[in-house]
Amino acid sequence: MTVSREIRLKSRPSGLPTADNFELARVDLPDPSPGQVQVKNTWMTVDPYMRGRMNDVRSYTPPFQLGQALQGGAVGEVTASNDPSLKTGDLVQSFFGWREAFNAPAAAVQKLDTHGLPPQAFLGFAGMPGLTAYVGLLRIAELKAGDVVFVSGAAGAVGSVACQIAKLKGHTVIGSAGGSQKAGFLREIGVDHAIDYKAERDLTAALMRAAPEGIDVYFENVGGAHMEAALAAAKTFGRFALCGMISEYNNTDLGQGVRGLVQVVGKSLTLRGFIVSNHTDMQDAFVKDLAGWVAAGKIQSRETVKEGIENAPAAFLGLFKGENLGKMLVRLN
Amino acid sequence: MTVSREIRLKSRPSGLPTADNFELARVDLPDPSPGQVQVKNTWMTVDPYMRGRMNDVRSYTPPFQLGQALQGGAVGEVTASNDPSLKTGDLVQSFFGWREAFNAPAAAVQKLDTHGLPPQAFLGFAGMPGLTAYVGLLRIAELKAGDVVFVSGAAGAVGSVACQIAKLKGHTVIGSAGGSQKAGFLREIGVDHAIDYKAERDLTAALMRAAPEGIDVYFENVGGAHMEAALAAAKTFGRFALCGMISEYNNTDLGQGVRGLVQVVGKSLTLRGFIVSNHTDMQDAFVKDLAGWVAAGKIQSRETVKEGIENAPAAFLGLFKGENLGKMLVRLN
Repeated sequence: MTVSREIRLKSRPSGLPTADNFELARVDLPDPSPGQVQVKNTWMTVDPYMRGRMNDVRSYTPPFQLGQALQGGAVGEVTASNDPSLKTGDLVQSFFGWREAFNAPAAAVQKLDTHGLPPQAFLGFAGMPGLTAYVGLLRIAELKAGDVVFVSGAAGAVGSVACQIAKLKGHTVIGSAGGSQKAGFLREIGVDHAIDYKAERDLTAALMRAAPEGIDVYFENVGGAHMEAALAAAKTFGRFALCGMISEYNNTDLGQGVRGLVQVVGKSLTLRGFIVSNHTDMQDAFVKDLAGWVAAGKIQSRETVKEGIENAPAAFLGLFKGENLGKMLVRLN
Repeated sequence: MTVSREIRLKSRPSGLPTADNFELARVDLPDPSPGQVQVKNTWMTVDPYMRGRMNDVRSYTPPFQLGQALQGGAVGEVTASNDPSLKTGDLVQSFFGWREAFNAPAAAVQKLDTHGLPPQAFLGFAGMPGLTAYVGLLRIAELKAGDVVFVSGAAGAVGSVACQIAKLKGHTVIGSAGGSQKAGFLREIGVDHAIDYKAERDLTAALMRAAPEGIDVYFENVGGAHMEAALAAAKTFGRFALCGMISEYNNTDLGQGVRGLVQVVGKSLTLRGFIVSNHTDMQDAFVKDLAGWVAAGKIQSRETVKEGIENAPAAFLGLFKGENLGKMLVRLN
């Protein structure tokens, strides 16, 4: 018998979530049944999209259930196996995050070959956030030679990879993030113009100064004033990849509204929202490109790490306060 | 010597234009020089996009010049020719609207074969507005079998053609227009659900009732609450063709903002703005399809006609008050 602790959704947040929406629970895990493995998680991820699953509304993923453990990406080690496909000590990736350990069918976890990377990289630049950046730039925004690229949330897990991929492909990149530390990080990863939006009274003016000829591509993670600035700075035929709008996730109504959308007509802009899970066919190309970039030392990453399952809610809440530089992670066990 | 009258831009409007922004002027036309023709216009068009050209800002067409005649589509008759390519009596189409007559190089006007249609049809369903509807639906929104289509400004020059093309291709079509007369017209042209938005307190709720399963395609002519309703009603992977946003053209600032844009992410929507002049390669296909539809009696059109050049400003201003059922035109001479 193994004891695990997990984070459950105690109540649905209205607006910005608080610690009270979560509860820590203890679970006794029996030995794994035939076909099952038992996994001890070493890392779990918290991501902004999880906020949507806390609402009881139909969306592209079903809502989290009250009183049950939350879900999300995790990496861990097999501690007991009752299936020939996996053995004790195997490193695995799963969607059974928000818990210290779990039993699951062997087929529900994925053996992880780290290719020499730290395991938690597969929750960040080598995992879903990295693929999101890759898909958003290359497929959704149809990045092409000469494009000037603007990335919001540029110091985050997805944004920082988007900036680096665009730089690797030779583009002029403008990144926006909140605070001088993050702006400094953007300069370290090679961004041409780092905008600390918290220090700017007029974000549109700041973007116009950074891109006097305008932007061709906008990688959207934030929404609100960032979208308005991008619309104003967009060149004719500009393409926007809409990955997320973290400023909107805690709205209890339709929010403030984005002004200037009429420019989508006059400038013949294309705005495309996307969910990475619909583009997993690009996974192989991503892994191959990434391996080359990593081998050449051309991808940098930062992590903001909280310790212990009991701090997972705080890690998640921190996303909405901009507490993370790079990927927000929770180290377990 | 011929006397012509023309409408000039007297002052740039701020917000909603008024009659004071225009002036009627008399011009003496000499006989056409070698290579020129003289044309007497019989019809001219007023279109919402002209509002943008009254501002002194860079856009996809240069601004109108103060003290000079406005420009726009017109059809007329050659009254004198000093070029072998055209002869007196020839019917021509040009961009020298907003005037009763003009001299121009023969190459700057286009001989018009009406194929049995009334000449003014080429300022409406058989001309730029018709092509706009065709391009918007077929190329921009990538209309495909089974799509449920929502058209705003559905009783207007572009919208009414968009509705009919979608119906001809077998789609369920929801059209929105202001007032019971326009809603009645929508039903006459076969629209499945006509929404009189002026009679609806909650446009989103009205659209949801008309399309309980959601919409696949939105043909946007209006902006504001119409866009918000379309975002709320859109199905996953919905495609929006953004043709215009007449509710925004007279804003003196960024306007009110469109709320709920975050749904573009969660629903993986594509919003594409377009300007028909970038898609004239579809003209031949449009004319061919249209000829078939007209021959089969499957395209209906309405015109709202003002008489005389002196009423052209009123015709234009009427567009922003929703005075037109179908195409707004001015009959000249």
